[in-house]
Amino acid sequence: MIMRNDRHILMLSENKAMKGIIKGKTVLTQHTARLERRGFGVRKRDKVILHPVEAIYLFLRGDMIIKKGKKILKTPEVFKWAIRTVPEFSELYFAYEDLRERGNRISVSDRFLVGKKTFLPLSERRKFAVPELYKLRKGFDTLILAVVDEESDVTYYRIDNVDFHGRQSEEISKIKGYLVKDRVVTEESEIHTHFFYGNEKNGIVSLSLIESCYLVDKGFMDVYSSGRELSIEEIKKMGRKVEENFDRRYEVYKDLKDRRFCVKTGFKFGSDFRVYDEIKSVEDLPHSNYLVSVVDDMRLPLYEIAGAVRLAQNVRKKMIFAFKEEDENRYLQIEWIKI
Amino acid sequence: MIMRNDRHILMLSENKAMKGIIKGKTVLTQHTARLERRGFGVRKRDKVILHPVEAIYLFLRGDMIIKKGKKILKTPEVFKWAIRTVPEFSELYFAYEDLRERGNRISVSDRFLVGKKTFLPLSERRKFAVPELYKLRKGFDTLILAVVDEESDVTYYRIDNVDFHGRQSEEISKIKGYLVKDRVVTEESEIHTHFFYGNEKNGIVSLSLIESCYLVDKGFMDVYSSGRELSIEEIKKMGRKVEENFDRRYEVYKDLKDRRFCVKTGFKFGSDFRVYDEIKSVEDLPHSNYLVSVVDDMRLPLYEIAGAVRLAQNVRKKMIFAFKEEDENRYLQIEWIKI
Repeated sequence: MIMRNDRHILMLSENKAMKGIIKGKTVLTQHTARLERRGFGVRKRDKVILHPVEAIYLFLRGDMIIKKGKKILKTPEVFKWAIRTVPEFSELYFAYEDLRERGNRISVSDRFLVGKKTFLPLSERRKFAVPELYKLRKGFDTLILAVVDEESDVTYYRIDNVDFHGRQSEEISKIKGYLVKDRVVTEESEIHTHFFYGNEKNGIVSLSLIESCYLVDKGFMDVYSSGRELSIEEIKKMGRKVEENFDRRYEVYKDLKDRRFCVKTGFKFGSDFRVYDEIKSVEDLPHSNYLVSVVDDMRLPLYEIAGAVRLAQNVRKKMIFAFKEEDENRYLQIEWIKI
Repeated sequence: MIMRNDRHILMLSENKAMKGIIKGKTVLTQHTARLERRGFGVRKRDKVILHPVEAIYLFLRGDMIIKKGKKILKTPEVFKWAIRTVPEFSELYFAYEDLRERGNRISVSDRFLVGKKTFLPLSERRKFAVPELYKLRKGFDTLILAVVDEESDVTYYRIDNVDFHGRQSEEISKIKGYLVKDRVVTEESEIHTHFFYGNEKNGIVSLSLIESCYLVDKGFMDVYSSGRELSIEEIKKMGRKVEENFDRRYEVYKDLKDRRFCVKTGFKFGSDFRVYDEIKSVEDLPHSNYLVSVVDDMRLPLYEIAGAVRLAQNVRKKMIFAFKEEDENRYLQIEWIKI
């Protein structure tokens, strides 16, 4: 009786499988034109040196048996050898397999999978600080994260360093506002109806402290409290009181405004800001183009990144993570893609 | 010249505004049939006692002037009085205004707004442990969070304690798997093709450690490593090694399975699990019905809850937060609703 996990015997009996022999951390097999055409391994005279991941892929497809010395290994033994030989075998293998099955001719290069594009296999359990990804990204034309979840399903995320700009222009005549606790209120409603700051009801516009700082900073607004004009520092102080990360959020807000975007709160989407390239009319608002989260060097679990990116794309926006490099604001775009 | 913020003068000159007089923490005005019909304040003989939030709403709509003694207050003075009188004035006021403008006849009761339904106004900056919300919810027929963001826009979330059940039934013949680092592999692929555990490729099914624990626990699988059968405790140990919160995730997974759901990883959606009421065929998968996040007593910022809920609903699922109360798993459903 042939046991279910004796696929090597099935293969042998059909006498069609290649023979691979473990040699150190690789598997050696006979060179064939077909193997070369399919892009497996590195040729060395009449032999081909396979990475364990390649060998196991061929083994599990039933194309190859794997021998250690004279002994033909069974499936569990093959896996056992692989996980001892390759650190992070699971991520590397399942990403490799998924890409191959989708028709990508890739090879293993250290912790990357390289074909027309470069893939970095990662376990969903990994945490990343976005600046790490930003630095990593710099070495490649294209870099795609191949994230392997606990059920070995693979999801792909393209990461891109972006230097983006909007087309919003603003000529605002100075207005007056007054501080109402954690916001600023003004009766000069054009600031909303023409320029889309704050929120308007019954002719009263309520501005966030971040918007207010910016308008004061630009000389577009004076803010009063108990009849006294407040300095921008006093408004910031109020901001810090109600919000942990006020200063960094304001820095990014200001940078996005300087990049000529229209910037609104991203609360409903779980991010800091939603960002419009341009607003022509508040009555006929376009969809915002980006969601921006200020993450700096926070270590984020990949599932959190996955959730944010998925939501952004479901509402037809791009997900951008903001952080600081030396004194500059930087932006990393992460995009869920199909391969 | 009439100044922009002298709306009280405009009102007076048109001689149509009601007159409100500040009395302690309330505003007194003359009773009118119209005021009563619109559901404002509490009648006391020929007077009506208004909550500051009601008075300011009437004031900002231009229906009422507000006097302190003989002095008619200007808009900034009215706000100044209100924020000194009402803790969390902003949340309460902007939620009240938004609900009124949407045609809800509500009144203020402590920190709640009560009409046909009960609303709890909250600042987006608040953090909550889900068990707090669960307890709060118990006192009401319906409870809706009215979350006021920094730009004073209001988003509504209905919260419900749910005790839910699926319709999945499983009769699984015992299979064999072997541990491959952080997952379990089996060649008995019906476990995927019939019962939707793990992920299958080339006849090899890769199961998560959580799924594996469950299958072992139920007596549906034996797991081997180096030829030796592993106990469930050994598999759990492996789980704890690769994942911080393995035990709680497994407890919730098991509880959901006991509730007859089909449970898969929710990685792509940034949550712990996606949950199906029933799977009839893996070839023709339905949409999953719920996303479940195991949050226990973590304090979550409301924007995170908002993001998770928004994503769930965008992919036509319901967002469920799981936690433990004494020794029971409890589930809180949070749903973004339009009012």
